[in-house]
Amino acid sequence: MRSANLVAHMTDLVTFGETMLRLSPPNSERIESTSTLELRAAGAESNVAIAAHRLGAETMWASKLPDSPLGRRVVAGLRQYGIDTEIAWTDDGRQGTYYLEHGTDPRGTNVIYDRADAAVTTTELDDLPLGSIRDAKLFYTSGITPALSSTLESTVGEVLRDAQATGTTTAFDVNYRSKLWSPAEARESLTDLFPAIDLLVTAERDARDVLGRSGDAEEIARGLAADWDFETVVVTRGSAGALAFHDGEIFEQSAFDTETVDPIGTGDAFVGAFLACRLDEEDVQTALEYGSATAALKRTIPGDVAVVTREEVERVVASDVSEISR
Amino acid sequence: MRSANLVAHMTDLVTFGETMLRLSPPNSERIESTSTLELRAAGAESNVAIAAHRLGAETMWASKLPDSPLGRRVVAGLRQYGIDTEIAWTDDGRQGTYYLEHGTDPRGTNVIYDRADAAVTTTELDDLPLGSIRDAKLFYTSGITPALSSTLESTVGEVLRDAQATGTTTAFDVNYRSKLWSPAEARESLTDLFPAIDLLVTAERDARDVLGRSGDAEEIARGLAADWDFETVVVTRGSAGALAFHDGEIFEQSAFDTETVDPIGTGDAFVGAFLACRLDEEDVQTALEYGSATAALKRTIPGDVAVVTREEVERVVASDVSEISR
Amino acid sequence: MRSANLVAHMTDLVTFGETMLRLSPPNSERIESTSTLELRAAGAESNVAIAAHRLGAETMWASKLPDSPLGRRVVAGLRQYGIDTEIAWTDDGRQGTYYLEHGTDPRGTNVIYDRADAAVTTTELDDLPLGSIRDAKLFYTSGITPALSSTLESTVGEVLRDAQATGTTTAFDVNYRSKLWSPAEARESLTDLFPAIDLLVTAERDARDVLGRSGDAEEIARGLAADWDFETVVVTRGSAGALAFHDGEIFEQSAFDTETVDPIGTGDAFVGAFLACRLDEEDVQTALEYGSATAALKRTIPGDVAVVTREEVERVVASDVSEISR
Amino acid sequence: MRSANLVAHMTDLVTFGETMLRLSPPNSERIESTSTLELRAAGAESNVAIAAHRLGAETMWASKLPDSPLGRRVVAGLRQYGIDTEIAWTDDGRQGTYYLEHGTDPRGTNVIYDRADAAVTTTELDDLPLGSIRDAKLFYTSGITPALSSTLESTVGEVLRDAQATGTTTAFDVNYRSKLWSPAEARESLTDLFPAIDLLVTAERDARDVLGRSGDAEEIARGLAADWDFETVVVTRGSAGALAFHDGEIFEQSAFDTETVDPIGTGDAFVGAFLACRLDEEDVQTALEYGSATAALKRTIPGDVAVVTREEVERVVASDVSEISR
Amino acid sequence: MRSANLVAHMTDLVTFGETMLRLSPPNSERIESTSTLELRAAGAESNVAIAAHRLGAETMWASKLPDSPLGRRVVAGLRQYGIDTEIAWTDDGRQGTYYLEHGTDPRGTNVIYDRADAAVTTTELDDLPLGSIRDAKLFYTSGITPALSSTLESTVGEVLRDAQATGTTTAFDVNYRSKLWSPAEARESLTDLFPAIDLLVTAERDARDVLGRSGDAEEIARGLAADWDFETVVVTRGSAGALAFHDGEIFEQSAFDTETVDPIGTGDAFVGAFLACRLDEEDVQTALEYGSATAALKRTIPGDVAVVTREEVERVVASDVSEISR
Amino acid sequence: MRSANLVAHMTDLVTFGETMLRLSPPNSERIESTSTLELRAAGAESNVAIAAHRLGAETMWASKLPDSPLGRRVVAGLRQYGIDTEIAWTDDGRQGTYYLEHGTDPRGTNVIYDRADAAVTTTELDDLPLGSIRDAKLFYTSGITPALSSTLESTVGEVLRDAQATGTTTAFDVNYRSKLWSPAEARESLTDLFPAIDLLVTAERDARDVLGRSGDAEEIARGLAADWDFETVVVTRGSAGALAFHDGEIFEQSAFDTETVDPIGTGDAFVGAFLACRLDEEDVQTALEYGSATAALKRTIPGDVAVVTREEVERVVASDVSEISR
Repeated sequence: MRSANLVAHMTDLVTFGETMLRLSPPNSERIESTSTLELRAAGAESNVAIAAHRLGAETMWASKLPDSPLGRRVVAGLRQYGIDTEIAWTDDGRQGTYYLEHGTDPRGTNVIYDRADAAVTTTELDDLPLGSIRDAKLFYTSGITPALSSTLESTVGEVLRDAQATGTTTAFDVNYRSKLWSPAEARESLTDLFPAIDLLVTAERDARDVLGRSGDAEEIARGLAADWDFETVVVTRGSAGALAFHDGEIFEQSAFDTETVDPIGTGDAFVGAFLACRLDEEDVQTALEYGSATAALKRTIPGDVAVVTREEVERVVASDVSEISR
Repeated sequence: MRSANLVAHMTDLVTFGETMLRLSPPNSERIESTSTLELRAAGAESNVAIAAHRLGAETMWASKLPDSPLGRRVVAGLRQYGIDTEIAWTDDGRQGTYYLEHGTDPRGTNVIYDRADAAVTTTELDDLPLGSIRDAKLFYTSGITPALSSTLESTVGEVLRDAQATGTTTAFDVNYRSKLWSPAEARESLTDLFPAIDLLVTAERDARDVLGRSGDAEEIARGLAADWDFETVVVTRGSAGALAFHDGEIFEQSAFDTETVDPIGTGDAFVGAFLACRLDEEDVQTALEYGSATAALKRTIPGDVAVVTREEVERVVASDVSEISR
Repeated sequence: MRSANLVAHMTDLVTFGETMLRLSPPNSERIESTSTLELRAAGAESNVAIAAHRLGAETMWASKLPDSPLGRRVVAGLRQYGIDTEIAWTDDGRQGTYYLEHGTDPRGTNVIYDRADAAVTTTELDDLPLGSIRDAKLFYTSGITPALSSTLESTVGEVLRDAQATGTTTAFDVNYRSKLWSPAEARESLTDLFPAIDLLVTAERDARDVLGRSGDAEEIARGLAADWDFETVVVTRGSAGALAFHDGEIFEQSAFDTETVDPIGTGDAFVGAFLACRLDEEDVQTALEYGSATAALKRTIPGDVAVVTREEVERVVASDVSEISR
Repeated sequence: MRSANLVAHMTDLVTFGETMLRLSPPNSERIESTSTLELRAAGAESNVAIAAHRLGAETMWASKLPDSPLGRRVVAGLRQYGIDTEIAWTDDGRQGTYYLEHGTDPRGTNVIYDRADAAVTTTELDDLPLGSIRDAKLFYTSGITPALSSTLESTVGEVLRDAQATGTTTAFDVNYRSKLWSPAEARESLTDLFPAIDLLVTAERDARDVLGRSGDAEEIARGLAADWDFETVVVTRGSAGALAFHDGEIFEQSAFDTETVDPIGTGDAFVGAFLACRLDEEDVQTALEYGSATAALKRTIPGDVAVVTREEVERVVASDVSEISR
Repeated sequence: MRSANLVAHMTDLVTFGETMLRLSPPNSERIESTSTLELRAAGAESNVAIAAHRLGAETMWASKLPDSPLGRRVVAGLRQYGIDTEIAWTDDGRQGTYYLEHGTDPRGTNVIYDRADAAVTTTELDDLPLGSIRDAKLFYTSGITPALSSTLESTVGEVLRDAQATGTTTAFDVNYRSKLWSPAEARESLTDLFPAIDLLVTAERDARDVLGRSGDAEEIARGLAADWDFETVVVTRGSAGALAFHDGEIFEQSAFDTETVDPIGTGDAFVGAFLACRLDEEDVQTALEYGSATAALKRTIPGDVAVVTREEVERVVASDVSEISR
Repeated sequence: MRSANLVAHMTDLVTFGETMLRLSPPNSERIESTSTLELRAAGAESNVAIAAHRLGAETMWASKLPDSPLGRRVVAGLRQYGIDTEIAWTDDGRQGTYYLEHGTDPRGTNVIYDRADAAVTTTELDDLPLGSIRDAKLFYTSGITPALSSTLESTVGEVLRDAQATGTTTAFDVNYRSKLWSPAEARESLTDLFPAIDLLVTAERDARDVLGRSGDAEEIARGLAADWDFETVVVTRGSAGALAFHDGEIFEQSAFDTETVDPIGTGDAFVGAFLACRLDEEDVQTALEYGSATAALKRTIPGDVAVVTREEVERVVASDVSEISR
């Protein structure tokens, strides 16, 4: 069954990947002790779609979900923030979930994945809204998607090549997850995809540990672009900011100060805002700046998603962080 | 500011009206005693849009909202159930709210409106997505909308006439609210709109108290159709079921048994499902049946909205209400 | 330490007794399973004071409380409903609590008292606002109070005699609690108090089991009045209604239908409304009617307290229980 | 009174099966709309162990669980009610979960299983505490367990035969689940187990639909006992009560009236109490009576588990359901 | 309708202004995402009344409220903290509300007012308890009140002049709110009121931005006192402490360290405690010290209100902040 | 891995003391304002038993509790974390409770005990599982227990002497509580117990203020050991770490950095982990290190109890505190 929400207009950005139900005890409670769980929809690629939408882009998230209240709960949790969804509904496969225990140091925040055999892992090319992807300016997925199944590994390659071939810019975040695969597995799989990618985002740490790059962030960006002919390479560096290589030039951006309420989704917020700016034809420096500001705001918001407004991002960019506004 | 979510595809049904934030104490708590309020989006016309969508129609709700977190909360609370929204965002006017105190008898459930000067009350014709309305098969609003302001009284007339003139079927529920206007005011205003309406829904009680009709439900339906040349007249009778007059014929439907959790929105659920069936070219009898089944399900669901699936409605229609499904 | 909230104006009604913190698991949860407890202030005499106030009387609740957040929580939970409080604050004695497990049948609702050694059990005559009591039209306490300690047993006798001697009408509800004393103990103690009581309220069951009366409710009322020279005797009969003997006449009142959310405090709501009407110089029949209506409303409200308005009570009296008011 | 939890004692009853995490929206909320889920441990065999323990038996639940916060949450949710647990912890396999949507009619309560590939499905004989099972008086599992995997199908047969061979009475509830297997599959698998079962419990409906029996409940019980040489056969009939065949004799018991808060686990409560009575050497009639009373109480309690006391059960048996106890 | 809670005793302090219902998502949730709102009563002048009461003063808050559950909820939320209320109940006008989103930096805390057309905006002199105000030692309102409507602008002037003329000391906090009026409007209106004010409180920032003062805090205080003949001028400086000019002398006080849970109401807590000390005939230095300590405590407490005890304030003043007290 | 919960084994550690119900408002709410309380089981000796169990020891907590839902709630709240309980159930005496108000500085966290006349205060020697204590390797109680009643003062002495005489190592934490007794009373009582104690734990502050020791931590440890012939003395120093004297040698350990969510139970977590290591025949240095790591983790967890795993403790010991684990 395919939802009928097909839109003929040009979507700016289509993202594809797994979105899970995120189950977390309130406050700093332990799973072992809790009697309630907070429920949210959460996934790297839908996070990116929402962040981009909040900055002004028309975005769609495509995926495959079980035709059940759980799958519908995922869609509800994404559409509420304004994006469109295009779902291949199925009776096969589970709804992936993850349990999140927030903990201060030295306990730390802990993630327990329960995503094996999710419906999304069987996604084939014709489960995806190829028309929308081809018509979009940008297509995005991350390194989590091919890590989920060998079917997805193939599908991601196919859709990236198809998109690129039909004129859609392809963007990709390495997004390495050690609970899904080893660095060696990831490197082999991802480098197979690289020829089909125009814009690469990678954490500096992933560039080193997974892609085997060395040198500083600039060397990493220049080296990756040189080796794989990426149009743009963005290297994210956590609290050290971010750096981009584009058109032979290096752009740098420091991180904005932020008091963290929920760190999950910070990188996705950055990428979503960066892509929205680029879709808006803002220059790379501005895109980095908006990305960093959106990431800083994200950390103040519970859940995976950057529920921000463009105006709020602009206030951070302008460092106009005043007292209580009343 | 207009949201950019314009869709070129043909929407089946566009509804227009006010959606409020509904604030209600949990359980049967009194407002005077409560320290928390449950927050939901709630409005007759968005309720209808959602019920119709859940039965399979492509629907859009159009309105005017304050450009604030409150207005965005309304959109979030509607889009999560799958419909599209087309909003004229404004800096003028409030977000309407209503406070709902659930009470068992003899206390009863009490509604306190705080909707004066809502942004929606200033809606003019060009705030509405006329293109979408003209392209839709069906346009719907209810008697609440013209009751909210004289501007809206004019706008409702204009949009109904415009829709009807451009080939969109117009549907209208009398939906009398004594806290908004007197029966005499309502009758005068609504009968002005009747020539532009193709499908009229009215509670039997409203037909008597507001429209001044007498006789039984069949006489009311036949009389209204005769006087105003409605294509279809549906008379709802609460637990006594519903009756429709269409094409010279009378159709009757009893109500399904239901154990009520939240009665608000029952009529809207009925109308939405009725319209979805008619859009699907189901016959009037089937539409009444699905309407009644959806209404019965609505009463089991907290909030104004019929968060149902077509499959659930069909199980009620088939009276296949089994034990716990496991 | 005495709170300084002394008021020179004439209070209509002063009540005296223990108010506890009531701790109850949400919904129908068992104490053994719950991780949260709902917290409310609850006590027969403060319930009566609030019900009377809600019907229009100026009322004050007097008691002795520990000078701690727990004692202050009690005052907060009563003052919020409009009554005045006059507290003898002390560093000796506990804050009484009770745990309430709501259960449907056959489990039933269960109360676990933890009220031993409460500060109130040491209340002596000069802990009470005798000036206010003497100036009031009515003084009320119930059979729970003398059951709590021998000090209280003495104090209750003293204050009733003092009030009566200074022209304040004295009202008393037998309110037998089997977890506090035996029927024989109660009978001996209460009959010592009867000469100082003008208006007696008793459940029919308590009249039989504790006071040893026989015959029907009318015989009980007439007999008690004859034996103890009460000005008024009210016999409450649960769902069978209530009956009063006053001035040689018998008045009867049936109970109003009600769908129960929380049964605790029903009798107190009845008494408070009855007393408010009598303070207002309404006749006994009207007082019974308002008492019954207030009791019916109380059962729709979570907590011990009748958080009603006079208008709501009047609507029940008029049986104007309509549909959702909107 | 001293609890009997002295460590060297013989356990009366060991049960074995899957216990899941049960995730349910509060009140009657839909999964699609909820932002929180209530979390409880729930499984037929642990339900039986707890019900038996609450009636006085020393019981242990054995199973295989993932060595994760989720598996530990299951143990926490069972041990809190007093039973012992004996767990084979593993790094392979998921924690089974189920989502429960409570709904009044005609919506009904809905269960969504997410239990595929649970750790328990790989349980082999040496994962089980055979020493404890052999030493126990009674061993219990239900028809859910062999339905979960072919490994479990084998293991259940092996453990039943081992237990029976070493002198432990074996008890088994058919407990057919249509979401796990077909009636034909169930019949074939279960009848293979029947020779190793001493005490069989079956819903009358399962006896007909799964086991293919006909006639009334007595005929079913007599027939099953005759065909398979069961020492005891109990036929449960929902609100129509229960019937047992034992030692050539038929025992009947009607159901106790109950106002349902949560129906899940009713049958398990019945079985647990029945077994506890039999362990206590109560006669079959008494066991049926206590089983029915415990089942009635269970329905008043949120969650799968009969959190009751023996005293409460005895009060129901004695029909001593009074008013609020205070 | 006027509440009958008239008290003949001398109230120390009467405050007058608007108190709103404050609606805030739990934790750091966004309004757009939340399904519940916490509900509290909140307003500058009632905050001041409560803070003063907690320090020992007899205080009353006077205002005009809608005769509805919303208006009664405001009274409940204030009376619970011990103050008296004197309300002009009306059927005209709304209950003002405000939505509060708590956010860490760089998002920040955001306030959304929904207070237009509140009942309080129509308050005229005879809606106020002039007898109580004239009998009180002190009358207080703030610059928010005249900003709400032109009627209030007049009424505030009238009541200040009436109070001052009848021997009640008048106190006023500039309390500039940029969402209500411009600095120029505020200055014009407030300076009209200054001749009727004995004790002025102003934030240093407001003194500069609204009143157009320059120089340091001392120069501001001296200058204002010189220009307008205030008996006392208090200049608050946030984390830099506070300074007062009185009787030709300057008093300074640094702020106490505090870990902020909720910053709203800090200034009101300061003012309330300052006034309570002055009513107690404490010297200005002590009043500043208690004001600062109360402000520091307020920031540790959720909600607008300083729910403190005098003993707690004294412990802060004495810097006796020990470890967990147990 | 198989859990070691086999019934016939020797328990490693038995602890004895009072466990209360802990009632705390959510977040930083004040008791005076809250409408809900969080409920947990909490007591020094059960905290120690749980911490030791989580590190791998087989532990049992013994006590006397009221035979009521409240007493059973205590057992549920302990058994859920894996320990065994051995309870003398009684109808005499209350369930002790304590109210906990979390507050940031300068308000601070406040504890209000309501533990007078708890059932535990009547515990005599034969209420305790002497067989289990004699069979255990270690018996533990703290200075809170003898402070609760003179009966307990005797019982603690008897059980310590009995345990020591039968070869069970006795461990004791001074745990001085100023709300229970004076330093002089504590010193007199505790020093009477010292001859029966093998392993003494004391806060450095208690050593000075209660035991009258002087010098630095090492001098305190050496002095106590010399004077009372303790086998081991541990001196805890809060954020300054801990020090132990054993077998003539001094061992020191600094504290691990931690971001505190709930400070209650930190010391008990330290002691439990220290004892578990010693039971495991780890050396004193390792035991101090694990104790400190467990204490640091405890502070990240709501409630009194160290709900940790041995693996988590080992990660802290290894300082392997990484980013989000996913």
